[in-house]
Amino acid sequence: MIKVGIVGGTGYTGVELLRILANHPDVKVDVITSRSEDGIKVVDMFPNLRGHYDLAFTVPDVERLASCDLVFFATPHGVAMRMAPELVACGVRVIDLGADFRIKDIDLWSRWYGMEHTAAALVEQAVYGLPEVNREQIRTAQMIACPGCYPTAAQLGFLPLIENGLVDTRRLVADCKSGVSGAGRGASVGALLCETSESMKAYGVAGHRHLPEIKQGLSIMAGRPVGLTFVPHLTPMIRGIHATLYSVLKDPNDGLQALFESRYAGEPFVDVMPAGSHPETRSVKGGNVCRISVFRPQDDDTVVVLSVIDNLVKGAAGQAVQNMNIMFGLDERAGLNQVGLMP
Amino acid sequence: MIKVGIVGGTGYTGVELLRILANHPDVKVDVITSRSEDGIKVVDMFPNLRGHYDLAFTVPDVERLASCDLVFFATPHGVAMRMAPELVACGVRVIDLGADFRIKDIDLWSRWYGMEHTAAALVEQAVYGLPEVNREQIRTAQMIACPGCYPTAAQLGFLPLIENGLVDTRRLVADCKSGVSGAGRGASVGALLCETSESMKAYGVAGHRHLPEIKQGLSIMAGRPVGLTFVPHLTPMIRGIHATLYSVLKDPNDGLQALFESRYAGEPFVDVMPAGSHPETRSVKGGNVCRISVFRPQDDDTVVVLSVIDNLVKGAAGQAVQNMNIMFGLDERAGLNQVGLMP
Amino acid sequence: MIKVGIVGGTGYTGVELLRILANHPDVKVDVITSRSEDGIKVVDMFPNLRGHYDLAFTVPDVERLASCDLVFFATPHGVAMRMAPELVACGVRVIDLGADFRIKDIDLWSRWYGMEHTAAALVEQAVYGLPEVNREQIRTAQMIACPGCYPTAAQLGFLPLIENGLVDTRRLVADCKSGVSGAGRGASVGALLCETSESMKAYGVAGHRHLPEIKQGLSIMAGRPVGLTFVPHLTPMIRGIHATLYSVLKDPNDGLQALFESRYAGEPFVDVMPAGSHPETRSVKGGNVCRISVFRPQDDDTVVVLSVIDNLVKGAAGQAVQNMNIMFGLDERAGLNQVGLMP
Amino acid sequence: MIKVGIVGGTGYTGVELLRILANHPDVKVDVITSRSEDGIKVVDMFPNLRGHYDLAFTVPDVERLASCDLVFFATPHGVAMRMAPELVACGVRVIDLGADFRIKDIDLWSRWYGMEHTAAALVEQAVYGLPEVNREQIRTAQMIACPGCYPTAAQLGFLPLIENGLVDTRRLVADCKSGVSGAGRGASVGALLCETSESMKAYGVAGHRHLPEIKQGLSIMAGRPVGLTFVPHLTPMIRGIHATLYSVLKDPNDGLQALFESRYAGEPFVDVMPAGSHPETRSVKGGNVCRISVFRPQDDDTVVVLSVIDNLVKGAAGQAVQNMNIMFGLDERAGLNQVGLMP
Repeated sequence: MIKVGIVGGTGYTGVELLRILANHPDVKVDVITSRSEDGIKVVDMFPNLRGHYDLAFTVPDVERLASCDLVFFATPHGVAMRMAPELVACGVRVIDLGADFRIKDIDLWSRWYGMEHTAAALVEQAVYGLPEVNREQIRTAQMIACPGCYPTAAQLGFLPLIENGLVDTRRLVADCKSGVSGAGRGASVGALLCETSESMKAYGVAGHRHLPEIKQGLSIMAGRPVGLTFVPHLTPMIRGIHATLYSVLKDPNDGLQALFESRYAGEPFVDVMPAGSHPETRSVKGGNVCRISVFRPQDDDTVVVLSVIDNLVKGAAGQAVQNMNIMFGLDERAGLNQVGLMP
Repeated sequence: MIKVGIVGGTGYTGVELLRILANHPDVKVDVITSRSEDGIKVVDMFPNLRGHYDLAFTVPDVERLASCDLVFFATPHGVAMRMAPELVACGVRVIDLGADFRIKDIDLWSRWYGMEHTAAALVEQAVYGLPEVNREQIRTAQMIACPGCYPTAAQLGFLPLIENGLVDTRRLVADCKSGVSGAGRGASVGALLCETSESMKAYGVAGHRHLPEIKQGLSIMAGRPVGLTFVPHLTPMIRGIHATLYSVLKDPNDGLQALFESRYAGEPFVDVMPAGSHPETRSVKGGNVCRISVFRPQDDDTVVVLSVIDNLVKGAAGQAVQNMNIMFGLDERAGLNQVGLMP
Repeated sequence: MIKVGIVGGTGYTGVELLRILANHPDVKVDVITSRSEDGIKVVDMFPNLRGHYDLAFTVPDVERLASCDLVFFATPHGVAMRMAPELVACGVRVIDLGADFRIKDIDLWSRWYGMEHTAAALVEQAVYGLPEVNREQIRTAQMIACPGCYPTAAQLGFLPLIENGLVDTRRLVADCKSGVSGAGRGASVGALLCETSESMKAYGVAGHRHLPEIKQGLSIMAGRPVGLTFVPHLTPMIRGIHATLYSVLKDPNDGLQALFESRYAGEPFVDVMPAGSHPETRSVKGGNVCRISVFRPQDDDTVVVLSVIDNLVKGAAGQAVQNMNIMFGLDERAGLNQVGLMP
Repeated sequence: MIKVGIVGGTGYTGVELLRILANHPDVKVDVITSRSEDGIKVVDMFPNLRGHYDLAFTVPDVERLASCDLVFFATPHGVAMRMAPELVACGVRVIDLGADFRIKDIDLWSRWYGMEHTAAALVEQAVYGLPEVNREQIRTAQMIACPGCYPTAAQLGFLPLIENGLVDTRRLVADCKSGVSGAGRGASVGALLCETSESMKAYGVAGHRHLPEIKQGLSIMAGRPVGLTFVPHLTPMIRGIHATLYSVLKDPNDGLQALFESRYAGEPFVDVMPAGSHPETRSVKGGNVCRISVFRPQDDDTVVVLSVIDNLVKGAAGQAVQNMNIMFGLDERAGLNQVGLMP
């Protein structure tokens, strides 16, 4: 059994890790931390887990965490960069679900996240945990930066087009819609049911922290810097991201469906839908799947890709477990067999 | 492997059976029927199941179904009573998720369901599939009548009070709130999002088909006919039933919490919450659990029991699988390890 | 024009007052206060009001408020009792939408609200602003305690039964379901969309602050203390209260429909539905109406009353404006002509 | 008083017309038709209107309708084109909320709507009822084709950019999100709460009937045919459209905010938000307003316009009433003072 620690267990990605790991055949969660809930039993906070865990939250303690085989950080940015270096030095493998190790350009990270980075060396060493792109490096990585939710949906949707040089990468558009759980479990007026239900709005149009992450990923695929307009929207639902991606073909191309199917043929968690299908976010609710469709409306030169994930699963905790499975040589699907809850 | 057939696979209880059975270690779904979708692949209708099933719907055919070890009916009332007798005669075991075999009094059934019953003998033979009451009979049953969703929540909540003779059974009140999936997947104006979202209403106050079923169950527990006022409400959510149950103690009693805990101590799927807790339906979303709390507000003689289930799981497909597990001597929990999806 | 001040304009009852008063023909909102938003324009906080108001929030100032004809308090409990006495002394009329002046028994109030009351004399003088019961006293009142949302729905539903002595008042049951806006606009984890959507739960079963208020009102109607079990539930919607009320007839009675129709015949804002109807909360969304149905299921002796309101309108801001209209001799319907938003 | 008839009163645009007209000072609804609900009282079907209407639905009868000053068609496509010519011939003014008279190219209309057009001459005569573009022609029009919901949001958002020739019109993108009420009040599986709640999906990516309507409008603005990719999405809410519009500037431009403000300065129902604001659909819920923001993210050459409306109001019934007000020389705002319901 892999002995796992979770730092920051009271947010939505933390409890989602617990949900997924509850049925993982090769994992034992040994420690889960929370400064604010020290001593509280996990199941008293999250009664859906009753019968599955007997743990209580404890204050984060590096020594105790160092006894784990793997530590997940399900924390706001700024936490993992302070604790991960010591754990890595102890030989612990680390998967950060937060943003600290995603951006390779430290200055760029600091501008977008508004703080100094304190673990630049570990950023360099960290592998960006998108298995569909970096599976080989993930196998041997000690430090994984798990991708953000929007970046996962957007990159998987653009990937076949960009890595094959089919579209003009100067003006890509990612119009993305997220459920409210992306805003986290913190108390805030903006995420109240009465403020978000029965309404739709864009936010961060002038600039959102996932923009540099998506651009970095797409630029690596393209082999050159890309231009991207990214508009996130808050959607009145709990879970789910729907990315609608627009790009312009350089040359006429009738083979996009085949291209997507072939690119993702061996991928356990990317599902290219039949031509003409419109994936729904609910089809992946609770499951670690990215469903993708590709269209060329009116047979014109604009390509529209639809890419849906559950932001808490393939966009966070599920992808983290997928990375863990790869790192520890397990079946990549272990513990990730949940079927989307529909209806 | 148990070879399973499902009659009526396009409704919500049908697709929920498929979701649960997709990860059941001892089951193979061999045939799934639908008159209207004959030849359509299951995953084309329910894309959440993509990667899990390669079946197509077929027109119901008794001969083919008779080759199964077990047939589930996930059909509207009136269907199972026509097909089940022949299957039972062939030695197939049958679990009806519909209403045909729940009411022992055939005339009463006919009045509430508005049709003649055509399988009275099989009604007599059928076991009411509430494991917490009838587990022993279920083991050897060939025909199971799976309880309705409201009846499951209401009976499990009242059970410890009534079987111990603690409350006045002449005027019980069951105020129940259900998500919209209880209305099924048929096209109807009344279940449109625009008609049900952002609203709450009672329905069927003058009389609802689950009333005689609940009264029958409670009367058996009480050993005499009970009086019950049952008011169902439509709640703007997909899944979940919250039963709020009112009864009056015959004598002062401070031991209700202990009584409930003791009654359900060995039950794998009934969870008595700590004193003072309020169970939320989301804590059982997708899981086969009934969570219960008991209160005596202001230390008065009125007892309030809160009982929550997922109407599609413990209120339908999950309970059906639980029955199957018992009937076939499997671990009662097999395939039923889903943790409630929260958030 | 009536010159109006609003203390506490950033909560949901405050912005609802602004919405309603925006189209009131006889009112000018002159001052609106908020400590936290001092200097912020109302429309920057509530863009639905753009084009209707040019006001900014200011810090509460009794001198400035004293220049108004009427001051509404849309504040948490504890605020109005500190400021209202001075305003009343200045001759200003006051309507408190909060809880400070609702309970006549000061000790009882202190126990439930956990603080000393500092304006006992004004409590005595205050008129409970339920027009269907106290219209005459409201006309000349200087200080109005506007009823709570649950108490409005529950009292209007029980009123005809109790004031006519038809039911056993020792064991009344009020099973009430509220939208999340009842929890207010404060930042709290418990009211997040991700915590309340797609779920139903009871809360405060052991005791809720509206219990003594409802009991007080029903006891006055009955002429003696009543016994009441009150269970509030949080429902996944923004607005609306659905009260389901249970009581037992002392004697057989076939005239309940006629009784309710006759009792409320002249009431502009109570609508008795045709026999057999089930009122939906959405039918009153945004409107100042209480819709009521009465049933005697199975012709038995238990009476079920269904009573729905919009908690922010007839349960708060609309009822406050209705009181204002009565106090100032206006048409009671002035400014209250909004039709429920359906769908 | 303007004597009004409504053909097709049982759909969502019909009941919304009734809601708005209930408080219109200059209108009397004289007849409302429905084949299926002949004889049923309007308030029995739509209880939110109780106390406002005493009408019953009647079978459509041209003679009776011809006695009206104005007839609204709130019908599926194909109905108005059969009845409107006769009414127009009788001198009645007609506003069609449906699609029959929106597309000037009859062949194009027939291809998209799958039927022959039977009133080509009246199409030619009809004025496209977007007051911000065609106010002068609307004044004297006898036949108005009221714009679709998506086309209203999209055209108002693009208008200032295109009529001033600022953007490349060869590759415009309109990514639009609609509430479920856009799907109408017909019984359909696809619009059930259980199918649409807690999910987001695109639909009609290969082609949607509003595409040719939007292209026609934008092409008239541009003075030449435009290229447009239009992707509609179904959003889990009842009301609201959020259009996110992408275009590329021909030349650098820092004056977009001023341009939008100036273009819409005199418009009663278009509200340009302060720079940097993100309009929410709920801010216009129930109100006849289009709120717009304009961004140039990262100061690049891509312009993002956010445009929100209530699809049933400014996208249908409200805009129809606005047209009526203009046609009959009333204050354009008459009856359209509803403030957005927020929360």
